[in-house]
Amino acid sequence: MSERIRVGVFGAGGRMGATVCDAVLGDPELELVAAVDPHHAGLDLRSVAHLDGVDLVLGSGPDELVRTGAQVAIDFTRIEAARENVGFCADNGIHAVVGTSGFSDEDCEGFRGRFTRSNCVIVPNFAIGAVLMMRFAEIAAPFFETAEIIELHHDQKIDAPSGTAMSTVSRMAAASDQWGADPTQNEVVPGARGARSGGINVHSVRLRGMVAHQEVLLGTTGQSLSIRHDSYDRSSFMPGVLLATKRIADHPGLTVGLDAILGI
Amino acid sequence: MSERIRVGVFGAGGRMGATVCDAVLGDPELELVAAVDPHHAGLDLRSVAHLDGVDLVLGSGPDELVRTGAQVAIDFTRIEAARENVGFCADNGIHAVVGTSGFSDEDCEGFRGRFTRSNCVIVPNFAIGAVLMMRFAEIAAPFFETAEIIELHHDQKIDAPSGTAMSTVSRMAAASDQWGADPTQNEVVPGARGARSGGINVHSVRLRGMVAHQEVLLGTTGQSLSIRHDSYDRSSFMPGVLLATKRIADHPGLTVGLDAILGI
Amino acid sequence: MSERIRVGVFGAGGRMGATVCDAVLGDPELELVAAVDPHHAGLDLRSVAHLDGVDLVLGSGPDELVRTGAQVAIDFTRIEAARENVGFCADNGIHAVVGTSGFSDEDCEGFRGRFTRSNCVIVPNFAIGAVLMMRFAEIAAPFFETAEIIELHHDQKIDAPSGTAMSTVSRMAAASDQWGADPTQNEVVPGARGARSGGINVHSVRLRGMVAHQEVLLGTTGQSLSIRHDSYDRSSFMPGVLLATKRIADHPGLTVGLDAILGI
Amino acid sequence: MSERIRVGVFGAGGRMGATVCDAVLGDPELELVAAVDPHHAGLDLRSVAHLDGVDLVLGSGPDELVRTGAQVAIDFTRIEAARENVGFCADNGIHAVVGTSGFSDEDCEGFRGRFTRSNCVIVPNFAIGAVLMMRFAEIAAPFFETAEIIELHHDQKIDAPSGTAMSTVSRMAAASDQWGADPTQNEVVPGARGARSGGINVHSVRLRGMVAHQEVLLGTTGQSLSIRHDSYDRSSFMPGVLLATKRIADHPGLTVGLDAILGI
Repeated sequence: MSERIRVGVFGAGGRMGATVCDAVLGDPELELVAAVDPHHAGLDLRSVAHLDGVDLVLGSGPDELVRTGAQVAIDFTRIEAARENVGFCADNGIHAVVGTSGFSDEDCEGFRGRFTRSNCVIVPNFAIGAVLMMRFAEIAAPFFETAEIIELHHDQKIDAPSGTAMSTVSRMAAASDQWGADPTQNEVVPGARGARSGGINVHSVRLRGMVAHQEVLLGTTGQSLSIRHDSYDRSSFMPGVLLATKRIADHPGLTVGLDAILGI
Repeated sequence: MSERIRVGVFGAGGRMGATVCDAVLGDPELELVAAVDPHHAGLDLRSVAHLDGVDLVLGSGPDELVRTGAQVAIDFTRIEAARENVGFCADNGIHAVVGTSGFSDEDCEGFRGRFTRSNCVIVPNFAIGAVLMMRFAEIAAPFFETAEIIELHHDQKIDAPSGTAMSTVSRMAAASDQWGADPTQNEVVPGARGARSGGINVHSVRLRGMVAHQEVLLGTTGQSLSIRHDSYDRSSFMPGVLLATKRIADHPGLTVGLDAILGI
Repeated sequence: MSERIRVGVFGAGGRMGATVCDAVLGDPELELVAAVDPHHAGLDLRSVAHLDGVDLVLGSGPDELVRTGAQVAIDFTRIEAARENVGFCADNGIHAVVGTSGFSDEDCEGFRGRFTRSNCVIVPNFAIGAVLMMRFAEIAAPFFETAEIIELHHDQKIDAPSGTAMSTVSRMAAASDQWGADPTQNEVVPGARGARSGGINVHSVRLRGMVAHQEVLLGTTGQSLSIRHDSYDRSSFMPGVLLATKRIADHPGLTVGLDAILGI
Repeated sequence: MSERIRVGVFGAGGRMGATVCDAVLGDPELELVAAVDPHHAGLDLRSVAHLDGVDLVLGSGPDELVRTGAQVAIDFTRIEAARENVGFCADNGIHAVVGTSGFSDEDCEGFRGRFTRSNCVIVPNFAIGAVLMMRFAEIAAPFFETAEIIELHHDQKIDAPSGTAMSTVSRMAAASDQWGADPTQNEVVPGARGARSGGINVHSVRLRGMVAHQEVLLGTTGQSLSIRHDSYDRSSFMPGVLLATKRIADHPGLTVGLDAILGI
């Protein structure tokens, strides 16, 4: 067996960071060497991440990653902290796998210049199934005349449609503009036909008990194709995080999105 | 085996009427004795309904039903003709199973007085699965805090939502008014949250290749219940028509809807 | 507003018991007055059930329920303890809502004689959606010639089919024995057609990421009806537990199953 | 607008051939120039294909295709006839789009040598949605640890699993052999866990009313991806046939399967 990849985690005291620590600890190809969280300096990170018995450096500053020889750093923090963390990685030759949201085009341009000794991937959505769903919808789009999207979330979500649904629409619309006209002449109750964007109608369902789900429906003569992603909890991001951590060394410079990492 | 029920069909030359003739011929408990269609006097009804070899009276007027001793008449015609046909059945002691749409409350009141010797059932939707779906949605409603309906049809349908969806909403809203408030604060694209009626949101999907489908989603803490009906072609009405034909003798006077016939 | 129902919880230190405490605390119609757990005498039940600030008697024995005037006791423990707890309720005029599994017919007979001053309901499955699914499948059965069940669970489940699937089959088979013969003449790979029982085929899917799901499919000419229940986590039992707690006073003696409580 | 492609149809008197003629007639980029069927020499192909008013050569032999200058021939016949028809196309520089099943590897080798002036595509499944589903399942396979297939067909199908399901399994198994072990230790009723092949379980549902449907389920931590194809009638093959007819000129020699034509 080849040597394990040495991994450091920023924001290890947060909910997502703790989940990441657990996932790294559970993966035989990875070794968790540093768990960092300045906002939880007083907290016993060992309990947060169930780290009993692991020989691990816990600390409040990024220097820990250098001292422990981390090869890859994973960042799920907030945009201000993340900017510093990612810059630190670039300066110290550490690969960065970033799930924090909020980076501007300007941020990305900056990183592009700084990541010369190591690589960086910024991922808006780490759920592999959702990333595949969007890619497949894009590939399938030119072969169908009609497409609609149904996204379903728990009843606390205040935005509609979801960001994933809007991204999907926009990629499908870029892949094909040959969508049939809406046949509706009489919308008995306003809104029935959903939100139309780029020739594709999007419907947002909010249901107690549900988590995060999306179905892309494509129809042509005599048949339909449905691509559905169901996310059941926060752990759905982990397979994507682990995969990116293992593959980041092969993707020079800055990469945005999981697609390139998956090779799809 | 008990004696077969003698059945006459009005509008036997129409698409639905011809399908009904075939279904009656294929049922061992029923005997097709008369196929009537004034608008197809010149047409060979034998070919329409694949009636070769059946000893059957074909004719253009309702008198054929009396002459052949029909016990039940099935009517899929147009409202004007249907009014006369149904009245004729009442006057001649023939049970009437009616799928024609357009009867007013006044029509029904009239029939109520006239059906003293035989019975009549007027059915807006003969698809047993759809009728069960609506009934189940109604029973389930009080146990859930959120409910939404997705109806999906082919891309030639000009109305949205469908009549079945609106009936379902109205029955669910009558069964419960304890629906959670819509959590949406930011509808990024108008219409995303569908058509809200009685506390329930309805979404209409139009997709080439599809036929007629509806899904009722109900959600409460940690779980959801979905009830879905898929109709694949016109034949989906037949099990309901045949059942009503066999059971009409047990339902005195006028009955509206398949629910009572099903005993649900 | 009417007075709140006074509720005691047995097994309050267990995972399910703690969830029940939280659910009772969150319901405006109920008041949690006693949380009992002999196996967790040393444990601070306050922390388990997030009970800070609640004026609540915590104790290791059932006497607490009498002292606090509990009207209803909820039991999610183990069969040996549950037998004693339920008997204690009968003797002290406290209604019992029981989710513990393992009661024999003999146990039930015994309870039937003892519950004279208060009532008891023993519920194998508190998930309201699953209970409705089974009931609806039973009602629908006589109207379809073909039916199959697909149950889907996480990839740690060692039994197949699930208990819920087998209960569903048995109730559907009791409701109708008019199921079509299996058309399969050539099962290319053994097992493809699933487990056949009572004329209904059952298919068990085991998939990482999933929780507990079941779909009942019914088909007749030109149409199909699907009834699906999705359970996302342990909290899916809570709406059923709360409902039984509120309605138990109206169901004299011993009741088995949630159906009677739901009135379906 | 560019000139229309001149199309001839073999087996025009058969059910599939007639549907093909209709589809070609309805496509503005194609021109139906010859409809051939030796088995229906006496039949009025015009009525079969609703060809009224079309200036079309109808005949019983393949020579008609040469006389009318057909550029592409479409063949839905039987294997013996198809061998001759395809050979005729090779010899006469006509592109062949072939949906007839039963060709051996030897047949294909022969065609490979003969198609030097024109091209040939042999397609086991023209349903674009099914072809995409299989391709997507293959792409997704390496990112999931568990996968199962549910195929659902009408209750007259005698084989289980379907050919499409077996093809899908075989492609997914070739794409990944990292499937988790079956967790089942207790198969209460034999067959519950379906047909296991290549680490993937396949379940065959047979339901009256259904047509042809398949769902591929893939699961990993906290999420699942489902890819589903619904075929509603024979016309579901047409979009694939028309696309192959338009694109065959760009695919030199012999092509097997629709994937290359779709460019996926």
